Amino acid sequence: MTNTQLPTVAAGLLDRDAGESLTDQIVRTVAARIEERLLRPGGRMPSIRAFAAAHGVSAFTVVAAYDKLVARGYLESRRGAGFFVRVRPGAPLAATPAAIEPAQQGLDVAWLVRNMFRQLPHQQMPGTGVLPAEWLDGAAVAGALRHVTRRQQDILLNYGVPQGFLPLRQQLQLKLAEVEIAAGPEQIVTTAGVTQALDMVAREFTRPGDTILVDDPAWFLMFASFAALGTRVVGVPRLADGPDLARLEELAALHQPKLYVINSVLHNPTSASLSAAKAFQVLRIAERHGITLVEDDIYCDLHPGPAVQPATRLAALDQLKHVIYLSGFSKTMAANLRVGFIAASPELARRLADRKMLQTLTTSDIGERVVHRILCEGSYRKHAERMRARLDGLRARTVRQLERLGLRIDLAQPAGMFVWADAGRDTNVLAERAMAAGLLLAPGSLFSPNQLPSRCMRLNIAAMQDAAVWRFLERELA
Amino acid sequence: MTNTQLPTVAAGLLDRDAGESLTDQIVRTVAARIEERLLRPGGRMPSIRAFAAAHGVSAFTVVAAYDKLVARGYLESRRGAGFFVRVRPGAPLAATPAAIEPAQQGLDVAWLVRNMFRQLPHQQMPGTGVLPAEWLDGAAVAGALRHVTRRQQDILLNYGVPQGFLPLRQQLQLKLAEVEIAAGPEQIVTTAGVTQALDMVAREFTRPGDTILVDDPAWFLMFASFAALGTRVVGVPRLADGPDLARLEELAALHQPKLYVINSVLHNPTSASLSAAKAFQVLRIAERHGITLVEDDIYCDLHPGPAVQPATRLAALDQLKHVIYLSGFSKTMAANLRVGFIAASPELARRLADRKMLQTLTTSDIGERVVHRILCEGSYRKHAERMRARLDGLRARTVRQLERLGLRIDLAQPAGMFVWADAGRDTNVLAERAMAAGLLLAPGSLFSPNQLPSRCMRLNIAAMQDAAVWRFLERELA
Repeated sequence: MTNTQLPTVAAGLLDRDAGESLTDQIVRTVAARIEERLLRPGGRMPSIRAFAAAHGVSAFTVVAAYDKLVARGYLESRRGAGFFVRVRPGAPLAATPAAIEPAQQGLDVAWLVRNMFRQLPHQQMPGTGVLPAEWLDGAAVAGALRHVTRRQQDILLNYGVPQGFLPLRQQLQLKLAEVEIAAGPEQIVTTAGVTQALDMVAREFTRPGDTILVDDPAWFLMFASFAALGTRVVGVPRLADGPDLARLEELAALHQPKLYVINSVLHNPTSASLSAAKAFQVLRIAERHGITLVEDDIYCDLHPGPAVQPATRLAALDQLKHVIYLSGFSKTMAANLRVGFIAASPELARRLADRKMLQTLTTSDIGERVVHRILCEGSYRKHAERMRARLDGLRARTVRQLERLGLRIDLAQPAGMFVWADAGRDTNVLAERAMAAGLLLAPGSLFSPNQLPSRCMRLNIAAMQDAAVWRFLERELA
Repeated sequence: MTNTQLPTVAAGLLDRDAGESLTDQIVRTVAARIEERLLRPGGRMPSIRAFAAAHGVSAFTVVAAYDKLVARGYLESRRGAGFFVRVRPGAPLAATPAAIEPAQQGLDVAWLVRNMFRQLPHQQMPGTGVLPAEWLDGAAVAGALRHVTRRQQDILLNYGVPQGFLPLRQQLQLKLAEVEIAAGPEQIVTTAGVTQALDMVAREFTRPGDTILVDDPAWFLMFASFAALGTRVVGVPRLADGPDLARLEELAALHQPKLYVINSVLHNPTSASLSAAKAFQVLRIAERHGITLVEDDIYCDLHPGPAVQPATRLAALDQLKHVIYLSGFSKTMAANLRVGFIAASPELARRLADRKMLQTLTTSDIGERVVHRILCEGSYRKHAERMRARLDGLRARTVRQLERLGLRIDLAQPAGMFVWADAGRDTNVLAERAMAAGLLLAPGSLFSPNQLPSRCMRLNIAAMQDAAVWRFLERELA
């Protein structure tokens, strides 16, 4: 009975001159016949030797093909009995749905974030927080990845060190020195992006019931991340030049918060920066109330310099005594490398490295080696300049178009990828209508820790240049 | 004054026939001269044009070299004024120390784990939990990485999806089916190793003050990880065929634990497996007391099959109703890829994917694509067989040698990489003496949630074949 299925397996279908290897031809052909039920589930396959003889190929080729078919779930190997066609456990699922998922009960953070991960065309996502892929330097990332993987194949086999790839931390020391923050490699801990850095810091400093201050508005994902830790998230109104200091002092006295998370530079969602005077006062208030400041500087490399916008980092003033500095490369290099970092006092950095070990052991070296390579190759600086110039080229024109539609935008500090636009109406309603038109908007309510309806929304000037976006806005607002 | 430094910069040192590009030669030479203080900090570099003319190279070459020197912190560029030698912010640190770090107050978990990340020779680390790198299939990992990175360079620019790379989740569906667990891709969430999976699950199910049951002995890192969440970690005595059921029932009634984390197969540190009868009783007790079972199956692919050792997975009996299944590829493929996964009910998998998003947004696609490629290429199965055969080849001989030294080992279920050996004396003392001899041992106290001194220790039979290990053991024990 061994060879009953033989004539239907792959006879006459192998082609030595094809671009495809004989092994892959066998795999493809046998798989197709199993899918089409020409080979019946549970049936025994020809022996290696019989198959090889029948098709004039080597036994080695058949072994390799059978192995792949086993790995892909088409065949199973029974010791001593041969190979059998397997009953497959369910059909493969379709790929990630491309459509925007309808919000279940109005909008919420999870809804927005989930939709940001869908594969929508970038031009139709004015609500996104990242630059379109074609703005990034894919060639540099690919080149660095090839370089890194060519050099040492066994770097991947070990765990690496919990604190992160040392040469990257040395390179980050130089980068931090450029913004006047002195931090040795022992003060730096790599993380899987700023998201993980915030999670680690919040877990280090808070217990359930503690309060964390954030700006209002601010980056929405952290509200949910902190709430999941059982902490209370309280917003400090953010004015054009930084937080409302009187309110900050009041909230500090009232809640005795453990942390205050702040973007000093290119604040998300307004793209404005902290004035030097406010930076100084924020540090004094934090010191008075024993609050640790967490400075999220993820948009660092999009900052146009102090001639256009203030550029005072809290960590530059305080030198990482009461300030923890976070940044990363998801926005300006490549999000999927998942490379971010924390800079802190030596003692705190050691504690955070231990904590990282308990949460996730180590982060992968690959991404860290790629970022290291790109940073020390010298092309990144010009890439960042190009991105800034491209944003500058779009900003004034886009703002004029928006103003023509009646939106109000404060452009005293023109920089970054976001504009924070007052639409004069509830932007939750606008976002729901946009969703129906296949466009993703980020309504102001998302950026507030109490999620109240807002007339403002965040627009990404790099991701709204499509005519469909403007048609929608004109129809709704003009 | 522009060119005062010119004669000393790189004159006569460029060689067009060298293997190194002219750009890299300039970078190397200028960097060396800055290090040696032949170019003084703060001094101005020759202009691009002057440098190019003096050395007969193109301006393009000089621009590229100056850019790299800026990126590496040797030069700084001042807009409109040219390039200047920078005062470097501190010398680079030495690499990770290779020596074993002395324990500060006796042994503790952090001490052991930190030492496991040091670059000690594998042969001198009988205490390690991983296989030596040369046991792994580095060529397959490198090949898969090349394949993945060649195909699509821009996969890295986007975030990917929080739940994980879909084709990998489809491949994992097949892998789970082999151990009789039916789980579609929508029930699987990728994680940065089992460590992150445990952290995510514990955060989903517990609040501070809650109890988590673990085996005693069990994998030590999770004790610290759970304690950091404010939970109480309580040990269930692990007997040869699984937990002490009477004690499990008592502890369940007393503490109303939320979770019980268990290795059904190749339990760490004893390498024994749960009997079918005990698996059934564990499920019944868990159901009676509303405990969610977390089955950590990280050593899955080292299991020799049911002929040698029981192979009943809790998740195979319960089909992911009250059981959460965790596994990964750090032990048998490559630790630094950081690829693990959770399989759970569809509803719980959705919640865990949202939680992952809040903790870390996404995991990197690269590792997940590499694992996917290796799994569907068909060579992994044979690689796993080779590892098992190699362990089998060492085990009996190693155990005989250990028994000759007076150690007692229960080898009723010979499998896996660990033996759990009774040394007849306090193994904390032994481990400290080993440390002084440059060897890493894992004393039994580490594996117990109450960290009491123990006469047992875990030995990794793949990492103790060096003569130095045996000299030490003979000196101490014979």
